[in-house]
Amino acid sequence: MSNIEKIDAILEEMSEAVRNGPVRIKELKEAGVPVVGTYCTFTPWELVNAVGGVAVSLCSTSDKPISAAEKHLPRNLCPLIKSSYGFALTDTCPYFHFCDIVIGETTCDGKKKMYELLNELRPTHVMQLPQDPKHEMSRELWKHEIIKLKKVLEERFGVEITDEKLRKSIELRNSMQAAAMRFYDTATLPVPMVGGKEIMLVSDFLKFTFDYEKSVAKVNELVDAILEAYANGLCRKDISSHRILITGCPMGKSLEKVVDAIENSESPSLVVGFENCGNIKGFCRKVREDIDPIDALTEKYLSIPCSVMSPNDERISLIREYVKKYKADAVVDVILQACHTYNVESYNIRRFLAEEGVPYIAVETDYSQGDVGQLATRFGAFTEML
Amino acid sequence: MSNIEKIDAILEEMSEAVRNGPVRIKELKEAGVPVVGTYCTFTPWELVNAVGGVAVSLCSTSDKPISAAEKHLPRNLCPLIKSSYGFALTDTCPYFHFCDIVIGETTCDGKKKMYELLNELRPTHVMQLPQDPKHEMSRELWKHEIIKLKKVLEERFGVEITDEKLRKSIELRNSMQAAAMRFYDTATLPVPMVGGKEIMLVSDFLKFTFDYEKSVAKVNELVDAILEAYANGLCRKDISSHRILITGCPMGKSLEKVVDAIENSESPSLVVGFENCGNIKGFCRKVREDIDPIDALTEKYLSIPCSVMSPNDERISLIREYVKKYKADAVVDVILQACHTYNVESYNIRRFLAEEGVPYIAVETDYSQGDVGQLATRFGAFTEML
Repeated sequence: MSNIEKIDAILEEMSEAVRNGPVRIKELKEAGVPVVGTYCTFTPWELVNAVGGVAVSLCSTSDKPISAAEKHLPRNLCPLIKSSYGFALTDTCPYFHFCDIVIGETTCDGKKKMYELLNELRPTHVMQLPQDPKHEMSRELWKHEIIKLKKVLEERFGVEITDEKLRKSIELRNSMQAAAMRFYDTATLPVPMVGGKEIMLVSDFLKFTFDYEKSVAKVNELVDAILEAYANGLCRKDISSHRILITGCPMGKSLEKVVDAIENSESPSLVVGFENCGNIKGFCRKVREDIDPIDALTEKYLSIPCSVMSPNDERISLIREYVKKYKADAVVDVILQACHTYNVESYNIRRFLAEEGVPYIAVETDYSQGDVGQLATRFGAFTEML
Repeated sequence: MSNIEKIDAILEEMSEAVRNGPVRIKELKEAGVPVVGTYCTFTPWELVNAVGGVAVSLCSTSDKPISAAEKHLPRNLCPLIKSSYGFALTDTCPYFHFCDIVIGETTCDGKKKMYELLNELRPTHVMQLPQDPKHEMSRELWKHEIIKLKKVLEERFGVEITDEKLRKSIELRNSMQAAAMRFYDTATLPVPMVGGKEIMLVSDFLKFTFDYEKSVAKVNELVDAILEAYANGLCRKDISSHRILITGCPMGKSLEKVVDAIENSESPSLVVGFENCGNIKGFCRKVREDIDPIDALTEKYLSIPCSVMSPNDERISLIREYVKKYKADAVVDVILQACHTYNVESYNIRRFLAEEGVPYIAVETDYSQGDVGQLATRFGAFTEML
């Protein structure tokens, strides 16, 4: 098997594993494993793992259940929120179906208010997320919320989360983080080896497979194959491509249309990285292993530069860092319709990138396929100018 | 002068005083009085008064500056936020023009993020507002923010806010609160004496006049005239009117169209009260005078049942109370476009009122006059069914 064939094979295997996620969750549930539903990168994964449970990302990226959700929620609301609620309402998300409890956070207005309704469908514990990570009381509040979640999980599942368990979970999560970043950072190779949807697939693989050590090994195997292919002078993608860094709202299945529109531009273009939660934004920082585990979780999760934070300068730092590191030629800001925080923040990102001389485009989109043609036109024009 | 003529005359006088607000602010500014801009009912008015300043409600209710704002802000954002920012950007709000500092709060996503940009135009101090008033840390956080604001104002204006000053300001504000509620509560008379726009005018009068004792006296004079007219068997409004309680987003000048649409229905209808901030929601509770003033402010301002709070059960209690008290036949929920919190919460309000058997309609609108015909049609159909 050639290096390239090996990469292809591993990616295919990952894709199969992601498709198999619902079956695996059913098995875990039947085996008595606590299933904890999450929507956001802010949920401390390690606490769920330390209670012996699996944290599952609840379905939120398809437009199918949106019309059902709109019976209770306004139309003019972020599709991710409507999709999340719609899946729950119609019981069409296997992960929601099997989850014992949902953990939410007071991130954005829409999610915060949607959780009130979701709580009628499944017990929903909402963590109070501070809005300014640098405020003098934010750390105390967030630490309080992390300790509170620990108690909620312990009581719900009748399991004590000892420091030892928590430290082990932190180590495990850090190994996933390291594997994810090692993979994302293959974008530092002079020759592009994977495309945008493949990056999304690997992120999904780490989300929707639950034998974590195996998953970490698989991602590392993929990275090894990529490095070997590169060492052998091979190339899987067009080396002349414009290199695009994506930022903005969470990218799910329905937003592959954006990646397609970019990568199918006449002027060859490739998505080389995602500064989004679930990707670099969520994974770029390890949880410290040299301090009290609760303090370490507090620090890590409070540092995620989501646009709900105000001010959110760290996002600009992160974009700066990864534009440089991944040699991005341009930044594409993907904003879900009616996501006020990312939408307002795009003005700051635009100004910052203009100062840096990095081309930037913001697109507002939803989960429908209605704007596929428009996206193609816009990205066609944008990449042609690069 | 008849009782009715007296009421008319006082209302005309109030209208004139509101129009004169900008001139008065200019005079105050020139006299060296600190001018503090606010956008929200959550700003502790008493602290501004205690520092010797005037708290001015910054312009936010006209669609004129919205197109200018949309150069920096997304189109799909609440008109109140775009209007606020647009007025500041185009320097067309006299209150903004003369204000030394703006006080904002992390209420909704749009405002929170807009304040980041506003801070480039005028120093903007943002208070971290807790999202759940009943959460065990909310009081501590909000008290911290109130003490912090006190320091910010003291430092900015070089004036110490003593407990004595603060207690006096609380007394003054409570006298305004009492006058406002005494006026609103004339809706408990069996005969309606004022209409919706007149209620809005009195609220504006208390906002945009700055000789507070005089304003309180004037409002009380109006109430006396109303009570006298009632005692004399007089009636200023159609007694057969359907009585409407308005709830929802802040009501400003541009939303008089909603009141007009209701009150011009073929089936006679009258707005008898506003469960909105700047009206009942902001004024229904006094600040306690029998405890530490900072604690009293903390308690009062944290209890405002804005939809940004989650859960926000107190709003339902307030609506229940005032539907009963003002004998409302129906509730109209006025939601500004893209205001996610009020928009999502309307589902709860609708269910609650359905249980209570109170007719309810929610309208989503903006500051344009484009939907005036549509509003007339909808309210025509709605009031006909009452």
